[in-house]
Amino acid sequence: MIAGIDIGGTTSKIGLVQDGRVLQQTRIPTTGHADDHAFADALAAAVLGLLKDGGQGDLRAVGIGAPNANQFTGIIEMAPNLPWKHDVPLARMMQDRLGVPAVLGNDANAAALGEWRYGAGQGFDDLLVVTIGTGVGSGFIVNGKLVLGSAGNAGELGHMTMAIDGRSCTCGRKGCLETYVSIRGMRQTYAELADDLAVLKQDGVKCIADAAHQGDTAAIRTFEETVRWLAVGLANAVAVTGPRRVVLFGGIVRSGDLLLAPLKKRFHEALLNIYQGRVDLTVSALPDDDAALLGAAALTTLDIT
Amino acid sequence: MIAGIDIGGTTSKIGLVQDGRVLQQTRIPTTGHADDHAFADALAAAVLGLLKDGGQGDLRAVGIGAPNANQFTGIIEMAPNLPWKHDVPLARMMQDRLGVPAVLGNDANAAALGEWRYGAGQGFDDLLVVTIGTGVGSGFIVNGKLVLGSAGNAGELGHMTMAIDGRSCTCGRKGCLETYVSIRGMRQTYAELADDLAVLKQDGVKCIADAAHQGDTAAIRTFEETVRWLAVGLANAVAVTGPRRVVLFGGIVRSGDLLLAPLKKRFHEALLNIYQGRVDLTVSALPDDDAALLGAAALTTLDIT
Repeated sequence: MIAGIDIGGTTSKIGLVQDGRVLQQTRIPTTGHADDHAFADALAAAVLGLLKDGGQGDLRAVGIGAPNANQFTGIIEMAPNLPWKHDVPLARMMQDRLGVPAVLGNDANAAALGEWRYGAGQGFDDLLVVTIGTGVGSGFIVNGKLVLGSAGNAGELGHMTMAIDGRSCTCGRKGCLETYVSIRGMRQTYAELADDLAVLKQDGVKCIADAAHQGDTAAIRTFEETVRWLAVGLANAVAVTGPRRVVLFGGIVRSGDLLLAPLKKRFHEALLNIYQGRVDLTVSALPDDDAALLGAAALTTLDIT
Repeated sequence: MIAGIDIGGTTSKIGLVQDGRVLQQTRIPTTGHADDHAFADALAAAVLGLLKDGGQGDLRAVGIGAPNANQFTGIIEMAPNLPWKHDVPLARMMQDRLGVPAVLGNDANAAALGEWRYGAGQGFDDLLVVTIGTGVGSGFIVNGKLVLGSAGNAGELGHMTMAIDGRSCTCGRKGCLETYVSIRGMRQTYAELADDLAVLKQDGVKCIADAAHQGDTAAIRTFEETVRWLAVGLANAVAVTGPRRVVLFGGIVRSGDLLLAPLKKRFHEALLNIYQGRVDLTVSALPDDDAALLGAAALTTLDIT
């Protein structure tokens, strides 16, 4: 039995994972704790609560996916979207509280591992998994290993500069892919194109998809622009590591007619000729709620050399 | 003894390599042969000629670096800068002629292997080597292995789209890094900036460097623009694979004051914060003439799984 933990900006999920399945899960708020130690206490209590209810076996390890996590050090490094602006050594903190080994990894890399081991990436030793949400995360598998790089956190496709002097990004730089392609980016694109911003009164991008389906021109063009940037961003990633499959993950990519179908066309147009017919594009095969937990659990089986 | 062969657009180099040193070398024209078979005959004759002169040992293998080479198949695939517009199975052709195993690889990947085994990349298991010449080539080492990808040819940083709807590239797409950063790109930048094109009457970019040193404003700005694009292109590559070291290769990068010094500054500015202080930028430590041959020879020791 492995505990998988997925740390999000507002909510953190905790699950018990066995044989590639999430047996039980719960969630706690990420915010509102006195400090990072109190948050770690709450996470540990949630794991123990699930174990008490489940009682099917001993806890062997804890895998944690989090933004800005350095897999080599087990430290969350000054994550802009989490409540703690200092370094949080969460792997060690959970290990101390639960008495089993804990591995911390970047959340997008955890999602990539989950897809690779249990989802649409099974059997692909060269794989790219892109998570589109508030931002754009990604994880690269190359030669059958997760790419970690010098910061234990590689594969930041969302922070590839797509337009020098482009839109300002939360990372402090300009023109990053995620400033155009994420939920935040799409809402900005809509705001730039629309005369009337009533549609944006609802959160997220479902409101933009609904408007597009009703014929709202700015909403339709927002999806077209998003597809255009994403196609080139993915083609750039393919030019560098040459994956055989690209798996997209996140609610937005389920807008099949608005996003996936035109993206497939644009992506193949944007590919360098040597990759034509050598890479396919597909959508995650895992339930949204399970993927992050499975991926976090999969971190514990990762061979870090 | 290994024969290293480097196929260039106009000239091909042939060398005998032992213990990471080029013992002897020669060259033949790439163009002007009746067909690809005649070219392979000439290459084989050159290898045999060197062996006859050298006579220090048996030939064990042949390693060949070439543009558009697929390392999995041993085929040069429709290379736009070579005389043959069809697929050329050069690995098999050399194997047949010389009776020893032959490995064909992308020329930029061969250069990366050479730097990794014998040059400025020694000891770096996460490494990026960028070759700046007529175009921009690159090879990525990730987790201690060369990245080959689905086309046996990965690491095409030169064909990363840096500007949607940017300059036209020889690959048929637009805005590729090499349209701004290569010899061809720099000459185009100069032509766009200068009132008087007399400087460009000489080939290459040394003429632009000389003009910059004499205070020619367009030439100075050409280097500034080149540095700007290259810095962001390298930072994009770092965002994806997180190398600990970037090695630059090619005559242009030896213009230290015009290119390398400002590039180091711009590169560190362009890096995502998590990579600050975690990656360094340096210049090839191998003699220009030897690097390609050593790299080609190193292909024969590559474990392709």
